[in-house]
Amino acid sequence: MPRLRTALTDLLGIEHPILLAPMAAISGGRLAAAVTEAGGLGLLGGGYADPRWVDPAFHEAGNGRVGIGFITWALDRQPEALARALAHRPAAVMLSFGDPGTHVAAIKEAGARLICQVQRLEEAEQAAALGADVIVAQGQDGGGHGRVGRGTLGFVRAAVEAVAPVPVVAAGGIGDGRGLAAALMLGAAGVLMGTRFYAAEEAVAPQAVKQALAEGRGDDTVFTGVFDRVRGPEWPGGYGGHALRNALTERWRGRESELAGAVLEAEREAYRRADEADDLSSRVVWAGEAVDLIRESLPASEIVRRTVSEAAAVLSVAPRFVVS
Amino acid sequence: MPRLRTALTDLLGIEHPILLAPMAAISGGRLAAAVTEAGGLGLLGGGYADPRWVDPAFHEAGNGRVGIGFITWALDRQPEALARALAHRPAAVMLSFGDPGTHVAAIKEAGARLICQVQRLEEAEQAAALGADVIVAQGQDGGGHGRVGRGTLGFVRAAVEAVAPVPVVAAGGIGDGRGLAAALMLGAAGVLMGTRFYAAEEAVAPQAVKQALAEGRGDDTVFTGVFDRVRGPEWPGGYGGHALRNALTERWRGRESELAGAVLEAEREAYRRADEADDLSSRVVWAGEAVDLIRESLPASEIVRRTVSEAAAVLSVAPRFVVS
Repeated sequence: MPRLRTALTDLLGIEHPILLAPMAAISGGRLAAAVTEAGGLGLLGGGYADPRWVDPAFHEAGNGRVGIGFITWALDRQPEALARALAHRPAAVMLSFGDPGTHVAAIKEAGARLICQVQRLEEAEQAAALGADVIVAQGQDGGGHGRVGRGTLGFVRAAVEAVAPVPVVAAGGIGDGRGLAAALMLGAAGVLMGTRFYAAEEAVAPQAVKQALAEGRGDDTVFTGVFDRVRGPEWPGGYGGHALRNALTERWRGRESELAGAVLEAEREAYRRADEADDLSSRVVWAGEAVDLIRESLPASEIVRRTVSEAAAVLSVAPRFVVS
Repeated sequence: MPRLRTALTDLLGIEHPILLAPMAAISGGRLAAAVTEAGGLGLLGGGYADPRWVDPAFHEAGNGRVGIGFITWALDRQPEALARALAHRPAAVMLSFGDPGTHVAAIKEAGARLICQVQRLEEAEQAAALGADVIVAQGQDGGGHGRVGRGTLGFVRAAVEAVAPVPVVAAGGIGDGRGLAAALMLGAAGVLMGTRFYAAEEAVAPQAVKQALAEGRGDDTVFTGVFDRVRGPEWPGGYGGHALRNALTERWRGRESELAGAVLEAEREAYRRADEADDLSSRVVWAGEAVDLIRESLPASEIVRRTVSEAAAVLSVAPRFVVS
């Protein structure tokens, strides 16, 4: 099996430039360890920074060298989660959605690499100025939380130019080796994949969700604030989530502001029941456009292997496009 | 200077897999001829299908081999524009934004290649079934009219897979050789560029607009229906336009539905005056995310030359990422 070498693999000491997106609660210890084992880097989904989640997740990752990601505005409220994580000497800490400033020193002092995920060029420049070791440029092609505005292709290209020589990782809509090869051509040093790994065998997710990802289409995804409203917790302004469309999103599309008072309470109660029952007509299934490429649930190692093999194959013959 | 050979260059008989987006009224005869002369294919911006625009545009293109593009729903109302265009034996006709079905036979009979631009996977499949020779997969990274929903990277990758072996052209957020190289890695056979050529010397646009494109940032673009409302004509549901943010978009952001009656009439009158005065605080400057890459107004030939040179350079060394 070939290796793919970039500035990212050199920096992180990994075989392939593939990061597991730290999907909140979905990227558990098993999945993160499996991605690392396959040659990428697994990032635990520390999400809303519940300190109690951290130790068990690292333990579940065994002796695997992994990192962890947090939602920055949530970590601001519970910084203890970061202290717990750093005690495990993670390879990297990724912060997304907020100002990473107050956490930088602790992460650097612990010897972890600082990965900052951004959705605007302005934020990329701020992250570089703060000393980010890696900047993840997340376009709205991606699943889960993000910002409406910039597509992965346009954004990654611009971010690479704006923050050079800091390595940029492309995120959003990438689910196979062609996507990885494209990211490298844009000047990125690697990719971060979420949706594709959400369907992995090791992901912490009900079988019904993995099945929905295998069947879902990118055309049938929506970018919405409805889940944050109904499921909670509420997010700061400017963010939303990319998910498979379902009966809940269709019911409230374009009138999110009416989700309040007793109506909201009733929807919340209904959501709790649906969530427990894995009823996907209400329950969120975060998904980006890479969902088009998912046909089945596979072991994470197989996802990495196929992605690398395909990328190596298309990169190897790329010069054939050029006729002197 | 190297050539870039793909299924698209073979099909269209061109040197480089670069199409000029048929930007309504902006892609005039001079610009289209210049892109063709440089080795790509220039598409005249037939836009809203005014039959009177067609003959002068072809004449201005001189003896250049060019194509033409129309907004499909507008062409449905004025099909005469297509008849006029076909009399000039265009290399290709591109249709976007609507059901191309009723126009297919005339285009094929005239010996022109049929290029269909789509924004959803479902539309890509329909276009392939109708016999499109080329399918342009347009992500919302792109400038001008389009559809909210799919980013270029995720969409192009999925479209390539869905309509193979029909050649797919990537559109949206591509403004340089790295973007072109990335598109080829995704499996596309070429790119269509709009924003970058809008700033070209030959584009039909005021100097103030070209200056705004050179200075503008992708972070400062918006996807909005405000211009269609105020400037007209009104578009069918589901479409919007990607443009530089200005005072007009900020004033009406999130409350487009209030743009009606006397308020709308007043804004329309103000817009007409602003338009005449090239006052960019109101006047639309369509722009996609490639605006980040534009520093100056250049001749179209130089844009093609730089794009091809850069793409050839990065494609040529792509195998270096692979370590056996």
